Amino acid sequence: MKPLHPTVQACAAATQRFEGVFTPIITPFGDDGTINEEGLRRNVARWMTTPLTGLVVLGSNGEAPQLDDAEADWLIDIVRSEVPSGRPLIAGTGRESTKATIAATRRAAAAGVDAVLVRTPSFFKSQMTTDVFVRHYTEVADASRVPVLLYNVTMFTGVSLAPEAVEMLALHPNIAGMKDSGSDIGQIAEYVARTPDDFTVLAGSATTLFHAFCAGCDGTILALATLVPREIVSMKALLDEGRLDEARALQRRLMPLARSVGGLHGVPGLKAALELMGFAAGPPRPPLRPVSPQTRDLLREQLDALGALEKVPILRN
Amino acid sequence: MKPLHPTVQACAAATQRFEGVFTPIITPFGDDGTINEEGLRRNVARWMTTPLTGLVVLGSNGEAPQLDDAEADWLIDIVRSEVPSGRPLIAGTGRESTKATIAATRRAAAAGVDAVLVRTPSFFKSQMTTDVFVRHYTEVADASRVPVLLYNVTMFTGVSLAPEAVEMLALHPNIAGMKDSGSDIGQIAEYVARTPDDFTVLAGSATTLFHAFCAGCDGTILALATLVPREIVSMKALLDEGRLDEARALQRRLMPLARSVGGLHGVPGLKAALELMGFAAGPPRPPLRPVSPQTRDLLREQLDALGALEKVPILRN
Amino acid sequence: MKPLHPTVQACAAATQRFEGVFTPIITPFGDDGTINEEGLRRNVARWMTTPLTGLVVLGSNGEAPQLDDAEADWLIDIVRSEVPSGRPLIAGTGRESTKATIAATRRAAAAGVDAVLVRTPSFFKSQMTTDVFVRHYTEVADASRVPVLLYNVTMFTGVSLAPEAVEMLALHPNIAGMKDSGSDIGQIAEYVARTPDDFTVLAGSATTLFHAFCAGCDGTILALATLVPREIVSMKALLDEGRLDEARALQRRLMPLARSVGGLHGVPGLKAALELMGFAAGPPRPPLRPVSPQTRDLLREQLDALGALEKVPILRN
Amino acid sequence: MKPLHPTVQACAAATQRFEGVFTPIITPFGDDGTINEEGLRRNVARWMTTPLTGLVVLGSNGEAPQLDDAEADWLIDIVRSEVPSGRPLIAGTGRESTKATIAATRRAAAAGVDAVLVRTPSFFKSQMTTDVFVRHYTEVADASRVPVLLYNVTMFTGVSLAPEAVEMLALHPNIAGMKDSGSDIGQIAEYVARTPDDFTVLAGSATTLFHAFCAGCDGTILALATLVPREIVSMKALLDEGRLDEARALQRRLMPLARSVGGLHGVPGLKAALELMGFAAGPPRPPLRPVSPQTRDLLREQLDALGALEKVPILRN
Repeated sequence: MKPLHPTVQACAAATQRFEGVFTPIITPFGDDGTINEEGLRRNVARWMTTPLTGLVVLGSNGEAPQLDDAEADWLIDIVRSEVPSGRPLIAGTGRESTKATIAATRRAAAAGVDAVLVRTPSFFKSQMTTDVFVRHYTEVADASRVPVLLYNVTMFTGVSLAPEAVEMLALHPNIAGMKDSGSDIGQIAEYVARTPDDFTVLAGSATTLFHAFCAGCDGTILALATLVPREIVSMKALLDEGRLDEARALQRRLMPLARSVGGLHGVPGLKAALELMGFAAGPPRPPLRPVSPQTRDLLREQLDALGALEKVPILRN
Repeated sequence: MKPLHPTVQACAAATQRFEGVFTPIITPFGDDGTINEEGLRRNVARWMTTPLTGLVVLGSNGEAPQLDDAEADWLIDIVRSEVPSGRPLIAGTGRESTKATIAATRRAAAAGVDAVLVRTPSFFKSQMTTDVFVRHYTEVADASRVPVLLYNVTMFTGVSLAPEAVEMLALHPNIAGMKDSGSDIGQIAEYVARTPDDFTVLAGSATTLFHAFCAGCDGTILALATLVPREIVSMKALLDEGRLDEARALQRRLMPLARSVGGLHGVPGLKAALELMGFAAGPPRPPLRPVSPQTRDLLREQLDALGALEKVPILRN
Repeated sequence: MKPLHPTVQACAAATQRFEGVFTPIITPFGDDGTINEEGLRRNVARWMTTPLTGLVVLGSNGEAPQLDDAEADWLIDIVRSEVPSGRPLIAGTGRESTKATIAATRRAAAAGVDAVLVRTPSFFKSQMTTDVFVRHYTEVADASRVPVLLYNVTMFTGVSLAPEAVEMLALHPNIAGMKDSGSDIGQIAEYVARTPDDFTVLAGSATTLFHAFCAGCDGTILALATLVPREIVSMKALLDEGRLDEARALQRRLMPLARSVGGLHGVPGLKAALELMGFAAGPPRPPLRPVSPQTRDLLREQLDALGALEKVPILRN
Repeated sequence: MKPLHPTVQACAAATQRFEGVFTPIITPFGDDGTINEEGLRRNVARWMTTPLTGLVVLGSNGEAPQLDDAEADWLIDIVRSEVPSGRPLIAGTGRESTKATIAATRRAAAAGVDAVLVRTPSFFKSQMTTDVFVRHYTEVADASRVPVLLYNVTMFTGVSLAPEAVEMLALHPNIAGMKDSGSDIGQIAEYVARTPDDFTVLAGSATTLFHAFCAGCDGTILALATLVPREIVSMKALLDEGRLDEARALQRRLMPLARSVGGLHGVPGLKAALELMGFAAGPPRPPLRPVSPQTRDLLREQLDALGALEKVPILRN
């Protein structure tokens, strides 16, 4: 296995390998629908000034299902070149077939990512049994040079990785953890309970983040953290100190924006919010459409209420 | 728009353009996981001896989500060369982005298919509104040289094309019809009720085929028709003559196999059944796995009960 | 077993015992919330002038779950005294416990009803297995002097009587048939397929009535038939003659009212529609509330479009 | 309003009126299916020796939907006479109609209960809107001499009390709190966030109790607390001290029994477990059936693993 960059190694040696607060980054497009490379570089440079642990490229919020392989490879190259080796970079590489997933994983590893986040295949839902998932992820992890993170995202896939499947897969030396994007806290607690302490369980739902941390999650990969990274990092810190009431109050303060960006307005909402903060975002790729002006105004209010518009740089793309 | 081959044109002039009994064909793989070209040619040649109206290549049963674009293009070429111009050939070309869907549609049209079957994009489920679907299909139909068929397959996509969306899209001159793979008969009846008589509504669920025909479907694209084409053609004929009781009895006779192949055992079940009948099928592509020997035995019994094993040719791949 | 009245017996001897078109009658309340006896007598007398096969008292549309036992007993007495013995009267007697169901069944039989319609118990949903349902209905049927009809109404109970359960219960000599209020046509077809020809399967959903008849239902217990009895009787007759297209067209004509009364506006909608037609209805019992004036206007339009307001008697309660 | 007994008043003055750990008690039946009065008295006396805050009679676990009004009234009398006035007694009084709910509430108040727990009406599901719930509970609370607790139990009712409804109802001076039996932690957090600090929110799901406490619940009404009251009381205490890890570990230890009694085996499982511990329970009322011997053995193991069988008194009913 390829050596991890120093800080992650140190961290892994201590407790967990991918704990912390990650954010899945958007893919900025120009008005012609192609990737806005320069905007992306600026975005990444700005995120590097925050306390975020690291970034995830080609996640759902990166519109990965709408990109072709050439675009995907290029994106990783751009982002890797902007993320210093002291900050972990994770790439989404899940595909419907095991073969295509392995191919994408190998390309990402070759491009220097620190881990891959592999969402469950899901098209043939009634065939997606625990046995099928265990074989799929085992083959991918066997073939991957970098650690694999499982990715359960039922709201998009319509399937769910059973705690039994995760329990078995956590035994694989190259499967380092998982992300669950759901808000079924009982299920998240099961993932935590059935896996070893050094298996990282990352939360992915902004509206139930506090509850997922209480349930034992080691960190999060969260779209909301793109907008308010300090708040998310601080919620985890409060809970680590047993300051339950303060952490719960922070969750409440985040709720309006968490609802808008996580669920209601999806990637178009996240892109609109980022534009309001001065990031390069551009329109989502069709069939996704930009949010309405009303939604944009609402997002502005919600960002403002959290003080997220205060330090917006003046220059724009 | 490219001229349709003579029989379909004649048919279209009379009543419907894509009425009849179609089957979505499987993609046979060799033991090394690559497409078995020679087996595929033999399969198509054999289906051409049946009363099937035409074929669908790259449908869900063709494991389309697991194939790459080069494989998909090659498949169309092979099948087109085996299907005479008097028999319609439809290709599945749905992708997550509008752009990729249009590209796949153009390649399929250039390869000579008579129509494209475009499943709904579905990844970002909460964004898949009627407005988004109408824009997506309109752009695809505008850009396509061949007629477009809408494809609603909720069991795989987790989203549903509202009757309102279909009603609007049916006005587009290049949208000729739709397939619905569900078993919600009330919804299918709505599609029929809200669209003009020359808009083809095709059923896709074997366990409720009789009911969908009663509800007014003009035909079907049915995996089960790959196995028992005569029975499916004859059910439609019985209903066209008002012989309700006989058609209902035929549906009952088909139920055990309909349940196995349509739902319970999916593509792996269909492939196993086809192998038992002497077709080239091979294993499904992982993460899909072949059915168990017990399921294989059950399928043999169910095929045998319908007389489908009687005329199995001796030669095998 | 108590002898059935002559016409039903004749019918039963021939083919089915409770085939035909029944309607579940509402319970008219006065402004003080008590039962409007005189209005009820007038309603029943008027229904007796229609081609309805018979009536169901204490069904869901009769607000049975909101009545106490004394009211229920009194209702049966009133209605029985207005329904001539040549027209079958069925009473709803389902309760949560087997014991209370048997007691209610015995009281109804003693009051002279021709059969009882027993909805599934449902409170402890995860315990409501096929085994539990089979024991419950067997004990009720053993204890009942009149034939028992099973009643599956998932939209209200959240549980469903599996086709396997119905198949077993249909063997009981005192279980004459069933009503299913759902719109899952595949499931209704299963009930028909798995039970003997003399076991009556009655449909209960107005929006899918045509489809349920196609699937083999012997009749219906339908709220909509309270409003347009002739149309419902005629749909069945058309299908018995194989006139599929005309029956389907009639279903379409009925759809707007079928949606309003069956689902959207429930009992309050049905009561408002009946008042518009000159029946005694009054307000529903709280927590149910009367429909809004807007809904009332919509119902008037929908009734008018079907010619149901033409022959409204002038005198009112 | 009737004065509350001293300790509850004191407590209410300070922070919450019904915070703490309550248990819904079962209704023990003899072999003839009637209430086992003497067994019930012994059970209550034994629970009074535990640290439970108080008891709930006529909850779902008391098989309330299967009892008639006379039995219900008698039960309250028996239990009230065994529960000293220093321990709060709550009675379930929810019915389908507002009128019957008010009548049951008045009888319970007259019999001396300290509060009533009123489950949502639920039969006519699509009519059960926020507006309908707010009117229903307002009328009940207006008419009740004792404080009213709202009861949302979607697993049994199939309907859900929206946070908006609870927010409005929390303003009523006679609505003191609520119980939610679900495991949707996000929704429970909403109830807490939208209501004043002196509005009690009680959890009801054993498998997610820890998470509900983290989310801010003031206490619980929990079937599991009938079996292991000390453990439940201690989980709340650990969380009040910010000892998150210990509380989470305790939840894990309770999980096997929590799953068995709360969900999988329902009231029959709870009754079997109580019999194993030496309580009077007897069979559940049909259609409910006793658990299988296998389940009984499993429950014995699960109780034993928690040390709950150690102090079982020798004398039995």
